Amino acid sequence: MLSLDKVYHASFVLKPVIRRTDLILAPNLCPGTEMYLKTENLQITGSFKVRGAYYKMSQLSEEERSHGVVACSAGNHAQGVALAAAQNGIPSLICLPAGAPISKVEATRRYGAQIEMVPGAYDDAYARALQLRDEKGYTFVHPFDDEEVIAGQGTIGLELMEQLPDADVVIVPIGGGGLCAGVAFAIKHLNPRCKVYGVQVAGAPSMRDALVNGHIETLPAVKTIADGIAVKRPGDLTYELIKQYVDDVVTVTDDEVATAILALIEQQKLITEGAGAVPVAAAMFGKVPIEGKKVICLLSGGNIDVTILSRVISRGLLKTGRSADITVALTDKPGQLSAVSKIVSDLGGNVVGVFHDRTELDADITGCYLRLILETRDQAHVDEIADAIETAGYHIVSK
Amino acid sequence: MLSLDKVYHASFVLKPVIRRTDLILAPNLCPGTEMYLKTENLQITGSFKVRGAYYKMSQLSEEERSHGVVACSAGNHAQGVALAAAQNGIPSLICLPAGAPISKVEATRRYGAQIEMVPGAYDDAYARALQLRDEKGYTFVHPFDDEEVIAGQGTIGLELMEQLPDADVVIVPIGGGGLCAGVAFAIKHLNPRCKVYGVQVAGAPSMRDALVNGHIETLPAVKTIADGIAVKRPGDLTYELIKQYVDDVVTVTDDEVATAILALIEQQKLITEGAGAVPVAAAMFGKVPIEGKKVICLLSGGNIDVTILSRVISRGLLKTGRSADITVALTDKPGQLSAVSKIVSDLGGNVVGVFHDRTELDADITGCYLRLILETRDQAHVDEIADAIETAGYHIVSK
Repeated sequence: MLSLDKVYHASFVLKPVIRRTDLILAPNLCPGTEMYLKTENLQITGSFKVRGAYYKMSQLSEEERSHGVVACSAGNHAQGVALAAAQNGIPSLICLPAGAPISKVEATRRYGAQIEMVPGAYDDAYARALQLRDEKGYTFVHPFDDEEVIAGQGTIGLELMEQLPDADVVIVPIGGGGLCAGVAFAIKHLNPRCKVYGVQVAGAPSMRDALVNGHIETLPAVKTIADGIAVKRPGDLTYELIKQYVDDVVTVTDDEVATAILALIEQQKLITEGAGAVPVAAAMFGKVPIEGKKVICLLSGGNIDVTILSRVISRGLLKTGRSADITVALTDKPGQLSAVSKIVSDLGGNVVGVFHDRTELDADITGCYLRLILETRDQAHVDEIADAIETAGYHIVSK
Repeated sequence: MLSLDKVYHASFVLKPVIRRTDLILAPNLCPGTEMYLKTENLQITGSFKVRGAYYKMSQLSEEERSHGVVACSAGNHAQGVALAAAQNGIPSLICLPAGAPISKVEATRRYGAQIEMVPGAYDDAYARALQLRDEKGYTFVHPFDDEEVIAGQGTIGLELMEQLPDADVVIVPIGGGGLCAGVAFAIKHLNPRCKVYGVQVAGAPSMRDALVNGHIETLPAVKTIADGIAVKRPGDLTYELIKQYVDDVVTVTDDEVATAILALIEQQKLITEGAGAVPVAAAMFGKVPIEGKKVICLLSGGNIDVTILSRVISRGLLKTGRSADITVALTDKPGQLSAVSKIVSDLGGNVVGVFHDRTELDADITGCYLRLILETRDQAHVDEIADAIETAGYHIVSK
C-alpha cells in the first residue's frame, strides 16, 4: 500500500539524481492571486516522469534487474524510463508506435534504451510490450498505475510543501493520474487544508468521467494538443487515490491550453507542452476557485514538438491581433496593390506575405483578391488598418 | 571606485527583492563540456537589469529620491527602472523612442512608471532624458556606465561562485558592458583561475572594437536580432573594467544566435531573447575554448518579441528540415496536383500550405507552378520527398 514513508523514501533515493526544480512566482498570469509555478518542465528529460521511473527501477530485485525492463510510450515516460534504466545499470527496451515523432525516438535512444518500433498505434505498442514481458521475463514499467511510480511522482508534493508550506491550492495535470495521485497523497498527509485540483483536457476526460460515473470506462477515442495526457483509460490505483485525496477534477479546452502555453512563453519565458500548461489554463479561465489565494500550478513537462509550438504561437498572434490576415477585393486595375500597401505601411503595419490572385471563382469578372499577411501591434491596430482600407473605397472580404 | 564590498552590499540590499535564479545543468547543448545555464531570463521583469537599477536607486539621497529618476530605454532597462523605482517609492519617468513595441511600453507602464514617447530613435529619447534631468532635477539612471549599476549586476557573479565554486569558464553577453564588467569583477576577485569571456553580436561589436583599437569609438549603426545588446558606444567605466578583468571578447552572427535560441527552446525549455542567447551561441559555435570544462552561460534575459520568436522558430525548422518549401513545375493538365500530393502524403509529409499559380512569367506557357509548404521530419525526409517527386517526372524549381 502507498504510504507517506514510501514517498519520503523515494525522495531520498531521487535526491542525487533529479533536479529539485525551482518554484517561481508568476505575478501577472492571474491577477488577484499569488501564483507560483513548479517548473518540472525544467526537470532532466524535460518532464517529471523520470521521478517515478527511477524510483520504480531502484526498487527492483537483483533478478528483475538482470532481466531488464520494458515500457511503452511515445513521449515523456519513454525518456524517463530510458534515463532511469541507464543510471541504474538496467537494460531497457521501449516499444514505440510507428508514427512517433523522430525527435522523441532519438531522445529516447540517446538516453541509452533499445527501441522497437511497433506498427500501428499506441495500443499496439502497449500489447507488444506486454507480450515481451511475458515472453522474455522483462519487468513492465507502467507509466502510472504502479505504487512505486506514484510514490516517485509524489516527491513533488513533498518539495512543494517545503518550498511553500502555506500554499492554499495546488493544480495538477491528469492523464492516467499517477502524478496527481502521488502529489495529492503527499500534500493531504502533510497539509490537509491545502486544496488539490486535477485538470484534464476536454478531449480526453477519462478520470473526470470515472469520478462522475463512479466507475472507470475506456474512452473510444481521445483528441487534444496535450498529447502527454491523452489517455483513454485511467489507472485503477490512481482512480482510488484521486477519489480519496483530490478535491475536484476539471477540464479545459485545447484553445485554453494554447492560450496558456503562449502566456507562459511571453510572461514567464518558459516552454511547456500542452499537458504541462493545463493547470495554468484552468487558473486563467476560472475553472477552479483561486481568488485571493496562494496557488501553485504544476508545469509537468516541456517536451512540445517545435512544429506544434510554432502553430500555437501563430494562432496566438492572430487571436491577440499581433498578426493579421486580411483579404481585400480589388478591381483589376494598375496601382491598386501599391495603394493598399501604402495605407498599411503608413499606419505602421509590416507586410510579411502578399498573395495576389486573379482566378478566385467568386470574384467579380473584372476583379481580383489581394491577401495580406501583416505583423501588427494589437487588435485595435488591425481594426485601424482595416477601417482605413475600407475608407479608401476597397471592400474587405475577410480579416 | 568599484569594490568587492560594494558588490556584496548590493547583494545584501537585493536579497529580499530579486530572485536568486537557478543554475541549470544543460547536458546536451555542447557535448564534451559540463555546461550550466544561469537563468536570469527567469528573473523578475524577465532580465537581470532590475538588479543594477534597484541597487542604484536604493543608494540615492533623500533629496534625490524626492525629485525622482529619469531613464531612457525601449527594453529591459526601462522595466528594471520602473519596478525598482516603484518598490523604492521613487517617482520614475521613462523616455521611450516613438517606435518602441507596444508590449514593452505597456509592461513598463504596468510597473508604475510614467512614460514619455519621444519622436525619433533611441538617441533622441536619450537626449530628451538628459534634458529632463537638467531641467527638472531628476536623477538619470544610466543603463550601464554607473558604478552602482555595475555593482548590482555584479551580484550575479557572487551567486555563480556560490552555486558552482569550481566553474572553469563563465560566458557573458556584452552590450554597453555593465553586466559583463560587474560579473567579471566579482568573479576574478573570488576565483582568478575562472575564465570570463564576453560575447557581442557581429552587427554591434563596439566593445570588441574598443579593445582591439585601444580606445572607444561610436559605431555609425548597429543591426542585429539581439536588440538588448545593440549598443553603439560602450561605457567608459565598463571599458576599463572589461579591459582589466575579462579574458577575451568574441562575436557571434545573428544566424548563430537564432540557432542558440531554438536549441534552448528545444533542449532546455527556456525562452531567451537574442542578447540572452549569445553566450550559448558562442559556446555552440566554438568561439571560446571550453572543451572538457565546467562552463556557465549567463542567459541575461528572455524578453523577446513573440513575432521575432515565431520567425526564429520558422527559420530554424526550415534549416533543420522540420519544414520544407518546395516549388514544382507542372504541365497544366488535370490530376497533377493530386498526383504530387499523393507522393508527399505516401512518404509521411504533412501539407500545411498549397499555392498553385498559373501566371508566373517564367513558367512554360502550358505550365504552372505548385508551391507546397510541408511539415517534415528532418533534412533526409525532405530530400526523400523531393527525390520521389523528381523520379515521378516532375521538375523541382526550388526547395
